[in-house]
Amino acid sequence: MHGMRVPVPLDHANRLLNHGPTTIVTTAHQARRNVMAAAWVMPLDFTPPKFLAVVAQDTFTRELLDASGECVLHAPTTAQLELTYAVGSHSGRDGDKFERLQIATEAATIVRAPLIAGCAAWLECRVIAEPGIQQRYDLFVLECVAAFADDALWQRGEFRFAPDGPRTIHHSKGGVFFATGERLAARR
Amino acid sequence: MHGMRVPVPLDHANRLLNHGPTTIVTTAHQARRNVMAAAWVMPLDFTPPKFLAVVAQDTFTRELLDASGECVLHAPTTAQLELTYAVGSHSGRDGDKFERLQIATEAATIVRAPLIAGCAAWLECRVIAEPGIQQRYDLFVLECVAAFADDALWQRGEFRFAPDGPRTIHHSKGGVFFATGERLAARR
Repeated sequence: MHGMRVPVPLDHANRLLNHGPTTIVTTAHQARRNVMAAAWVMPLDFTPPKFLAVVAQDTFTRELLDASGECVLHAPTTAQLELTYAVGSHSGRDGDKFERLQIATEAATIVRAPLIAGCAAWLECRVIAEPGIQQRYDLFVLECVAAFADDALWQRGEFRFAPDGPRTIHHSKGGVFFATGERLAARR
Repeated sequence: MHGMRVPVPLDHANRLLNHGPTTIVTTAHQARRNVMAAAWVMPLDFTPPKFLAVVAQDTFTRELLDASGECVLHAPTTAQLELTYAVGSHSGRDGDKFERLQIATEAATIVRAPLIAGCAAWLECRVIAEPGIQQRYDLFVLECVAAFADDALWQRGEFRFAPDGPRTIHHSKGGVFFATGERLAARR
């Protein structure tokens, strides 16, 4: 099912989220950490790679994001559908979700927030301070400082999913997702 | 293939783009109009519904968006893959793309920009002035003032695609897209 987590050149990092998959966001500050689902995340720029993420003001993730200025964006797979829904349905203020949901993690390479095992993509990010839109819209500009993909799903700079294998997922409405479907190339 | 274009309540408008499909953006100002593909578009808020769109500074769409403060976001279908790629590959400064590509349009209900026939969803939008991020990131905050879906694809407040029917599409990299895949519901 899973391949190796391999580095993705930063100028291709946008391609990890171009297709609009839902994400899982991890954060950490000092001894505290959290994990949350976030559907409203997308690329903003190519080089250096920037991303946008909406993180609501009342969440524990927001508190840790504000405190640390760092996070990791993950693109979970169809095999992580229940996990994605579960981390989006409880607050980390009620107890460590990594322990409760038995989420396997690895250390990131640059940021303090952990990497969740088994995802299709990982993007280590730092917040670019934009206090106006953070306050008005809960909107964060993130610079991606390290990117990785599962090499069983990522080939020659793009996602290539096997017909019956794991794929990224897209949020529709509470608890309902779409798998990423068939690859379609324009004739040009 | 196609159903009727039916209104979507504004508090459900986010669900038209939650799953991260690629979009087509139309704009119009006085006698000029344009159409462009935009992959970096997503919801920002529920009620009133707001969306984010990245529109590069050198485009004709940007000029018309700045001049009019309005646009229509469309979610095209698999049947419109070539159209989506074509409108993203030429500039409207080189001639009217609606005429060249024989794009059928209808009048919108509130804004001046036209609706492209045959899409899965239509969102009439007005720009919320955010000059800082417009200038720094080519990033626009849009308020959706009218929303519609094809009722052959939209049922009881969500997209429901038939196995062999048209679906929304997601941009991967230049000219390569994914169809929206299978619907997956979490167990809860």
